[in-house]
Amino acid sequence: MNGQKHSRIDVPDSSHPERVTITNVSPQLNDGRYPIKRIIGDEVKVSANIFADGHEVLAAVLLHRTDRQTLWNEVPMTTLENDRWEASFRVSSIGEHVYTVQAWIDPFRTWRRDMIKRVEAGEHASVDLLIGTNLIAWAAERALGAESKELRTHADSVRANADRDLGYAAEQALDGRVAQLMDRYPDRRLGSTYDKPLRVVVDREKARFSSWYEMFPRSCSPKPGRHGTFRDCVARLPYVAEMGFDVLYLPPIHPIGCVHRKGKNNGTVAAPDDPGSPWAIGSRDGGHKSILRELGTIEDFRALVHATRQQGMEVALDIAFQCAPDHPYVREHPEWFHIRPDGTVQYAENPPKKYEDIVPFNFDTERWRELWAELKDIVLFWIGHGVRIFRVDNPHTKPFPFWEWLIAEIKRDYPDVLFLAEAFTRPKVMYELAKRGFSQSYTYFAWRNTPWELTEYFTELTQTEVNEFFRPNLWPNTPDILTENLQLGGRPAFMARAVLAGTLGASYGIYGPAFELCENHPIYPGSEEYLDSEKYQLRNWDITRPDSLKDWIARINRARRENPCLQSDAGLKFHSIDNDNFIAYSKSTEDRSSLVVVVVNLNPYQKHNGWVTLPLETLGLSEHQPYQMHDLLSDARYIWQGSRNYVELDPAAAPAHIFRIRRHVRSEQDFDYFE
Amino acid sequence: MNGQKHSRIDVPDSSHPERVTITNVSPQLNDGRYPIKRIIGDEVKVSANIFADGHEVLAAVLLHRTDRQTLWNEVPMTTLENDRWEASFRVSSIGEHVYTVQAWIDPFRTWRRDMIKRVEAGEHASVDLLIGTNLIAWAAERALGAESKELRTHADSVRANADRDLGYAAEQALDGRVAQLMDRYPDRRLGSTYDKPLRVVVDREKARFSSWYEMFPRSCSPKPGRHGTFRDCVARLPYVAEMGFDVLYLPPIHPIGCVHRKGKNNGTVAAPDDPGSPWAIGSRDGGHKSILRELGTIEDFRALVHATRQQGMEVALDIAFQCAPDHPYVREHPEWFHIRPDGTVQYAENPPKKYEDIVPFNFDTERWRELWAELKDIVLFWIGHGVRIFRVDNPHTKPFPFWEWLIAEIKRDYPDVLFLAEAFTRPKVMYELAKRGFSQSYTYFAWRNTPWELTEYFTELTQTEVNEFFRPNLWPNTPDILTENLQLGGRPAFMARAVLAGTLGASYGIYGPAFELCENHPIYPGSEEYLDSEKYQLRNWDITRPDSLKDWIARINRARRENPCLQSDAGLKFHSIDNDNFIAYSKSTEDRSSLVVVVVNLNPYQKHNGWVTLPLETLGLSEHQPYQMHDLLSDARYIWQGSRNYVELDPAAAPAHIFRIRRHVRSEQDFDYFE
Repeated sequence: MNGQKHSRIDVPDSSHPERVTITNVSPQLNDGRYPIKRIIGDEVKVSANIFADGHEVLAAVLLHRTDRQTLWNEVPMTTLENDRWEASFRVSSIGEHVYTVQAWIDPFRTWRRDMIKRVEAGEHASVDLLIGTNLIAWAAERALGAESKELRTHADSVRANADRDLGYAAEQALDGRVAQLMDRYPDRRLGSTYDKPLRVVVDREKARFSSWYEMFPRSCSPKPGRHGTFRDCVARLPYVAEMGFDVLYLPPIHPIGCVHRKGKNNGTVAAPDDPGSPWAIGSRDGGHKSILRELGTIEDFRALVHATRQQGMEVALDIAFQCAPDHPYVREHPEWFHIRPDGTVQYAENPPKKYEDIVPFNFDTERWRELWAELKDIVLFWIGHGVRIFRVDNPHTKPFPFWEWLIAEIKRDYPDVLFLAEAFTRPKVMYELAKRGFSQSYTYFAWRNTPWELTEYFTELTQTEVNEFFRPNLWPNTPDILTENLQLGGRPAFMARAVLAGTLGASYGIYGPAFELCENHPIYPGSEEYLDSEKYQLRNWDITRPDSLKDWIARINRARRENPCLQSDAGLKFHSIDNDNFIAYSKSTEDRSSLVVVVVNLNPYQKHNGWVTLPLETLGLSEHQPYQMHDLLSDARYIWQGSRNYVELDPAAAPAHIFRIRRHVRSEQDFDYFE
Repeated sequence: MNGQKHSRIDVPDSSHPERVTITNVSPQLNDGRYPIKRIIGDEVKVSANIFADGHEVLAAVLLHRTDRQTLWNEVPMTTLENDRWEASFRVSSIGEHVYTVQAWIDPFRTWRRDMIKRVEAGEHASVDLLIGTNLIAWAAERALGAESKELRTHADSVRANADRDLGYAAEQALDGRVAQLMDRYPDRRLGSTYDKPLRVVVDREKARFSSWYEMFPRSCSPKPGRHGTFRDCVARLPYVAEMGFDVLYLPPIHPIGCVHRKGKNNGTVAAPDDPGSPWAIGSRDGGHKSILRELGTIEDFRALVHATRQQGMEVALDIAFQCAPDHPYVREHPEWFHIRPDGTVQYAENPPKKYEDIVPFNFDTERWRELWAELKDIVLFWIGHGVRIFRVDNPHTKPFPFWEWLIAEIKRDYPDVLFLAEAFTRPKVMYELAKRGFSQSYTYFAWRNTPWELTEYFTELTQTEVNEFFRPNLWPNTPDILTENLQLGGRPAFMARAVLAGTLGASYGIYGPAFELCENHPIYPGSEEYLDSEKYQLRNWDITRPDSLKDWIARINRARRENPCLQSDAGLKFHSIDNDNFIAYSKSTEDRSSLVVVVVNLNPYQKHNGWVTLPLETLGLSEHQPYQMHDLLSDARYIWQGSRNYVELDPAAAPAHIFRIRRHVRSEQDFDYFE
């Protein structure tokens, strides 16, 4: 790459105190404790405060390498104002990369700057010329091969000419070619290296841009009352793929405990044919590495993984590190659980609530090393069967160091594996888990409803340091979350929330078919739990219903695929609109080649209209030229002009526009086109 | 102190991964690399993000000690919202203190919280009671003396009662006294300590609040043409003290070099009787530990130091680590200087400008250890002669590690010593020097003239992290800086700048008698150098001139002494005024018992009036009660009411008000008073 070279870091003579200070290196998280995140091909733009005492000229390089390389790549840094320096590098492989900054007081650059001034002032500076010549001669000793020879020849020639024609000799010493060569072999003895290597975890593109569909295999049977199988799932794949999803997320597929099994609607007593909760993992049939007999065999699972790939999608498995009381681990490894003074195993509880069908692991056990190794082995087992994405249940009830270790261990050998962290109501803990290694995280999107809440929250997620480590995955619903907004707002609310999720977030997901079928009955008023939840019983969904949102969702996903600006969380800007029922925002790529404006009527009950104001210059639009707003949802096209334009949205028909802006292009024949 | 106890940090069992995360501990600078600064008696308010996985109850303590103690003092931290914790401690001795944070998952608090819920739910929880009883019994083993016995007795009693009367036994276990005892002997095995000790350098009060007067001893002679002496300085002390200053700062007092000595007005050739620049230190008469013969003897100097103290002031000496070419060091230690290829010693230059009367030290010398030791010895020498304040010349041309080492070395044995760093045009370097140890720093105040510039700059200095390490010392003039504002604005400008310096900054200084005599002739138009500068010649000042500002300055300094709000840089707030020629601001102590409002007409040429708006509630004033504005400069009193009030200032008379607000007090007899 241009301007790069390879080197080991020159350690400055440690007997000298460091004159150069390098601070506030950015980006970095918690003083380098945690890595930032990037996607393969991304640029990492690094800046730092670099300064020294005195008035000498400094030089600085950005050093970067993968964690498997020993040699650094160097990129020269350039100065911005007020002692701030900057350079960037591109991450061209997945896995961990390391970067840091090195700077030094450059004797030759200092000499050259001063010598130019002396020459300009017409000074007779023979001693100064000698000093410079010595610097060139010393560099010749550091240099290699032909360049060493070239420097030596140059120094000799300057020396030879100095007595006869000082002016000519000075010109020789100040020659641009010499400066270039000297920059290749700088004297870094008066240098410093930033005191910690900073890390960046580079993922494949799906870590940034993904569209998830959560589906209970148990309910995929075409026959009501029959337990769904992996083969039924295979048959359902085209339906999911046609909607445009690329991740198929399955709740746990393992044997379900019989002891204290929950009945329908979370009843404490299960009827004989109640299937229980898939998260109550383990029975005499096996545990986290086994498959629930009703779903099929491991071969059926592999066939599903394969068929999913063939449809352009991937299977994501649920990781729930907890057990049913009859999980084999409880019998084989009682030391991994909390044993109470009466000899019983402690079940999960949040006093006075009890979850008798679940026993948590005791991560404080003295045998934590064996426990950790086994949990890692579970992940490796499913990787061995083709899974590369894991959705992690309740990550916040396991120690942070465990996740940091597990994810690093897995990604060291399988850097393409992605982990999605479930959410809970502790924002700092959510961020901590992301810093410790989760590739994506659920968010509080489901509970952000007003324009103010959405603007506030997504500004924090996308326009602050959070953007360096936290990749939001937006879910309007999950099997645990049927929001009041969806319960009350019905179909228009589902439509609006799907547009918000799919355009505010580069990654989003829905729990279907509940979502596209607008399932919105809570178990009781005020609860976010579904009535007749699939968590505790089989459901039969009529995916052919005419009121299904599957076409609406397919249009959203198509807009996402065809517009790169929707594939990244950066480039989000909120715009003002003079009616509080609306939210308006745009997303654009850095080069503005992809640009989308979204307007949503957040009121599911009433038609509204208003005037949206767009910052034309920021969006690369002209005040005087009309531009075309192509609604990717309805396919309608509107001609807008200037910054203020009218919108009207009737939620009963469609509560949102996803406008692709087509700029006005005048052709040679003076016909009007929109690109 | 209440709630405190002493302990060593319990090291959590390192074989367990740390479940508790402690991050974003504040205050701290560069991730703990540099200490924050405080004054003796100050409170240090510490907060941190503290959280763990799961739902257990955490406990946290702030740990603090002096750097000479080995035991920590503990202060319990309390939770704010969203996993933020807080506590504070008071620094009661000068020198370095250390603080950090420790937190742990508290099994007893967790058990107690859950047990209370169980009891409330009417649960039969005998096994849970047994778990709690065991925790109490274990704590008895950690506890000492009577408290150990009390805990054991309690545990036994709970156990004995558990079989007969579970409810009563539970009540016993949940007893407040038990909780209190358990908090004194917590089980910290599941704990973490913040990974670095954070430092705070505590200074005596003068580091925060000081009024400096710079004076050239050479010009203190009452007889024109005779070189001033230390005895003349002693005679001048009452004059300085009456103005209210408490630091008398003397430019270098050492022998001045003869080689390349500068003449009047920085002339390159000195006349035989030209005294040269005091910053060209060293001649055959001695160097940095000697006294210029014309000033007197070392005994005369000690007498001046003594007499200054008797007047309630302190002498501050100039430290200029550079030499005249004939300084003894140059001969005795050529290895401390840059030797050019022709064998000459490199003088200071900024090509093509040359400063032939000064040779800089070469801090890159291989013999830097000896050089550092000798420079430290210079400081110790003057400490030995009673000096405790040093003003450091050109600190930015010596390595940062040198200052960090020197100041730490000196303050280790003399924690009352203060160092003031001279300024230069590199903001980040200024801040870095303050972080490395300088007690006070010159600022860019001299060049901040408009309301916007002043507001912007002093908001940065006082309302941001800068306030943790950088103590501004404001100089409207120095021997090197005669600003355009003073040159053009004349006496009204001097008056206004004195008020700004003395009220915007808790520390400020003037270079006199040039300042109070409004000396404002530059060497040439556009230069900030004085004509006939004392740097190169003797001056005779008529300090009795009737137009002297000495009374004005005395009133400013009296206002500073009598109003604690002016003795700290915190508590500064700018207020709006509807005329851009004015600036208005208030300073108040945290308890608002001291409150001053300053209004300055920044236009030295024209009378102006305007309406100033004060935030009454913030200032503790009522909308409905009048309050008295007592101008401490003119002694006039005005009754104001409400938030908007009228001001009018004629620079020809007085360009500023320093209002002390006297709140309305109604006495028993219903007379009106203002407190």
